[in-house]
Amino acid sequence: MSINCHGADIYTASKRFGIDEDDIIDFSSNINPLGIPCNVQEAIIRSIKYSNRYPDINSRELTNSLSKYEVVPKNWIFCSNGAAEAIFRIALCLKPKKALLLSPTFSEYEQALKTVDTDIKYYNLDEKTGFKLTDNIINSINNETDMIFICNPNNPTGQLTDKRLLEKVISHSKSVDAIVVIDECFIDFVEDKEKYSVLNLLEKYDNLIVLKAFTKIFAIPGVRLGYCMSSNLDIIEGLKVSGPPWNVSTIAQAAGVAALEEKEYVMKTASYIKEQRDFLIDEINKLNIKTYESYANYIFLKFEGEFDLHYELLKRGVLIRSCSNYRNLSDKYFRIAVKSEFENKLFIQKLKEIMDIK
Amino acid sequence: MSINCHGADIYTASKRFGIDEDDIIDFSSNINPLGIPCNVQEAIIRSIKYSNRYPDINSRELTNSLSKYEVVPKNWIFCSNGAAEAIFRIALCLKPKKALLLSPTFSEYEQALKTVDTDIKYYNLDEKTGFKLTDNIINSINNETDMIFICNPNNPTGQLTDKRLLEKVISHSKSVDAIVVIDECFIDFVEDKEKYSVLNLLEKYDNLIVLKAFTKIFAIPGVRLGYCMSSNLDIIEGLKVSGPPWNVSTIAQAAGVAALEEKEYVMKTASYIKEQRDFLIDEINKLNIKTYESYANYIFLKFEGEFDLHYELLKRGVLIRSCSNYRNLSDKYFRIAVKSEFENKLFIQKLKEIMDIK
Repeated sequence: MSINCHGADIYTASKRFGIDEDDIIDFSSNINPLGIPCNVQEAIIRSIKYSNRYPDINSRELTNSLSKYEVVPKNWIFCSNGAAEAIFRIALCLKPKKALLLSPTFSEYEQALKTVDTDIKYYNLDEKTGFKLTDNIINSINNETDMIFICNPNNPTGQLTDKRLLEKVISHSKSVDAIVVIDECFIDFVEDKEKYSVLNLLEKYDNLIVLKAFTKIFAIPGVRLGYCMSSNLDIIEGLKVSGPPWNVSTIAQAAGVAALEEKEYVMKTASYIKEQRDFLIDEINKLNIKTYESYANYIFLKFEGEFDLHYELLKRGVLIRSCSNYRNLSDKYFRIAVKSEFENKLFIQKLKEIMDIK
Repeated sequence: MSINCHGADIYTASKRFGIDEDDIIDFSSNINPLGIPCNVQEAIIRSIKYSNRYPDINSRELTNSLSKYEVVPKNWIFCSNGAAEAIFRIALCLKPKKALLLSPTFSEYEQALKTVDTDIKYYNLDEKTGFKLTDNIINSINNETDMIFICNPNNPTGQLTDKRLLEKVISHSKSVDAIVVIDECFIDFVEDKEKYSVLNLLEKYDNLIVLKAFTKIFAIPGVRLGYCMSSNLDIIEGLKVSGPPWNVSTIAQAAGVAALEEKEYVMKTASYIKEQRDFLIDEINKLNIKTYESYANYIFLKFEGEFDLHYELLKRGVLIRSCSNYRNLSDKYFRIAVKSEFENKLFIQKLKEIMDIK
């Protein structure tokens, strides 16, 4: 397992560099810098008492809360052990023969499709347009396509696709009998997310699945909680039997219910992220490092210096995400999280230090 | 989803009968009545702090502890989101064309194999021999068999298979290229488990997978933590990529490490269960209800009365497991957990009450 295989692997980094896990500042995983809301922490503690029972296999209380939060019917929702589990279940449930993936994008779509031997085609995003998805993708969706994954904002590029183009993709896909999975795991970090989210297209299109997670926006990747939504009830029922019934822990269900009460926290997050992202981009650009337009809580950058930026930062206790193992990217590309003001300033300080020496 | 689809569905029972979940005594799920060990509860609380990080995808600390606890090399171990997740991953990873299952047995083997369209044959256990597995099973394992699941002690019957017969099955299966999965999720409740566990056959047979869980023995079904072991490293590596990488939560990993320190708790459990099981069997037999020999923390019984025992008990706040939806069983069969002395006495009292009225 390479150190760059996933973001967030502070455990391997810690071992390899002999730095205590607690001393690594992790800019490689894109977690809300405001931290786990207090009432979520309290809900976890309260849920321990009930952990000597099996979890509710239908996550009923959580599904009720989600139904109100996302304004979708309860029976359109499937809860999972992190969004990643939903991705693997979608693959297993629908077993697409052929699928189309953006390149670069989140690697788990490919990993999941490989478990069911899907033949994968890649739609290369163009660096010249800042890796932005264009209408051109329509030409790659045809009768042979069974499934498409689109991450919005895309990971690792941070690029957004607007709803007009997404509806065009979904509608065209419907005409060729293809399922479209839109991954909106980072959309709650976007300031005017209504312009981009396809949630309100669920009713119109039964070939649409929208994927979301508690992981990033509520800062609980260690708890494991995601969900997906579709108006296609055959898909939702299929997902339920495409994996173990007790997939969402009692603790995660309780954490999720508490998290959904935190509407102010979510609103505060989007403006905080924008402010800190602007600061980071400004400072990084001052050091003549190229950044791409970003709408998420991470920044995608191209570093053309002669030295190993990832390694130099890690020596100084800062872990960033090398994007060298993404398709269509090279070891010049990196992704960094937008973290707290204190951590972001520290990051810029370390980056300046390295650039000065080199 | 029928009320009897799984044990432990107090949520559906609560809703259907208008009884608060906390007022249902759950004899349908087989959880250690000694409750969640204190240091496990404390470890969960401590782990909240680290839940804003992704879990270690390799569950390194937990795997180290398991390696010492089970006395097997670290790289033979795969940790999962409950044992049920390991079952589904085994099916997806190995995609057996044909499999042999005992009947009756735990239903998740069948559910998991269905996701990969396995053709399943059933080996009917005979009521006349108390549903005990005999050497006769060897005749059902042939060149067409790719995989066999054996639950030991078997669920729901509580019957044990001795190691001699299991080695015969494993060895014969090896000769016909079949994988044998032995589910030992309940074996820690057995007093002299060394006579039955096949853990020490792992080194000799690379077609053997042993499945275990923290769920039952450490009373943490709500946390979700299981694992499987095999000396076949291709299988272990295959399991890792047959599902999401962050499958075991930070909280579950911490709970697991703490649980494995509780050796005295485990020893105390086995003797407590034996004492309480003997009490229950005695009292149930006095009411002329037939029980089968049991070695686990549950009792399998046949009730030939004219009324609906499951319903009558539930009206009185006691949920038992109707076994009517198991293959090769009927609505005459039930499984009840061995719980605390207080709860067991209450159960017998309610049972007497019903038998007196009827």
